[in-house]
Amino acid sequence: MEVEIIDSFIGATKNVIETMTSLKVLAGEPYKKEGKNSFGEVTGMIGMIGDNIQGNMIVSFEESTILKIVNSMLCEKYVSINSYVVDAVGEITNMICGGTKNGLSGMGMNVGMASPVMLVGKAQLSQLKNVPVIVIPFSTEAGQFVVEANIVSKN
Amino acid sequence: MEVEIIDSFIGATKNVIETMTSLKVLAGEPYKKEGKNSFGEVTGMIGMIGDNIQGNMIVSFEESTILKIVNSMLCEKYVSINSYVVDAVGEITNMICGGTKNGLSGMGMNVGMASPVMLVGKAQLSQLKNVPVIVIPFSTEAGQFVVEANIVSKN
Repeated sequence: MEVEIIDSFIGATKNVIETMTSLKVLAGEPYKKEGKNSFGEVTGMIGMIGDNIQGNMIVSFEESTILKIVNSMLCEKYVSINSYVVDAVGEITNMICGGTKNGLSGMGMNVGMASPVMLVGKAQLSQLKNVPVIVIPFSTEAGQFVVEANIVSKN
Repeated sequence: MEVEIIDSFIGATKNVIETMTSLKVLAGEPYKKEGKNSFGEVTGMIGMIGDNIQGNMIVSFEESTILKIVNSMLCEKYVSINSYVVDAVGEITNMICGGTKNGLSGMGMNVGMASPVMLVGKAQLSQLKNVPVIVIPFSTEAGQFVVEANIVSKN
C-alpha cells in the first residue's frame, strides 16, 4: 500500500481524535498484521471504494481507551461500553475515513465510503487474501488504539 | 428500503448458492432485525456505495450450514470452520453483492462494492442508527442462513 495512503490515515486519525478530545495522539511505526484477532473491545469497520482503491479501514480500541476518549468527546462518565459508546465509535470511524477520503482526494484519488459496522467484543476478522493488513498503532494518554488498513491499490 | 433492492438481494443469493452447490434455496419473508447479535458462526460483511445508496450487506451462516455449502462447492469434507471455509464465505459474500450490484444496475442504480470482512464466531454488530436492518431468511437442505441489509436509499 502506498505511503501516501498510510500517511492519509495517520493524518486523519490524529486530526479527528485531537479535534474531538483534548488528547495528544502519537502515531507509531506501521507494521504488517499477523493473525486475525481484533485489537480491542470495540471495533469500527468501514468499506472504501474508489477509482484506484478497494478495501476496508478498521479502527479498534481497548475498552479503557475508548471510554476515556468518548467521555472526553461527550463530557460523560461512562464506565462500561454502552450504545452511546458504540455509536461514538461509528462516528469516529466515519470521521477518520472521511478525513482520509479528503486527503486522498487532494492527491487526485476519488474514494467513496460505505457506512460503518461496529463490532463489540474481541473476535477473529479475516480480510482480502494476498493483500497485507497494515496496522498503524496510536498512543494517547487515554491508552492505545489501532487503525488497520486492508486496501488494494489499483495504481 | 425499496422492494427492488430486497428483491435484488434475494435473486442474487438464490442464484449464487444454487449455481455453486446442488442445493435448492428458499427465501423467507424479510423482517426488521431486533437486537445486535450476529445470526451464525461465520459472517461476511461488505460495504456498498452508490449514487443512490450507502450501507452494508451481511451474510451469516450457522456452522453446520456453511460446512455443507462449502463442502458441496469445493467437493471437500471439512468438519469444522477453517481458513478455506472462511475464504469461501468471503467469495460467497462478494458474489452475492456482485449479483445484487448487477441487478440494481439493470434498474439504473450505479453501485460500487468494497471488499468483504469475515467475522468468525458470534458477536454483536451495530450499524447505522435510524435505518432498519432488514433480515432475509433463507432455508436450504443444508440448513438456514440470512442476508442482512442496512442500506440508506437516497432516492
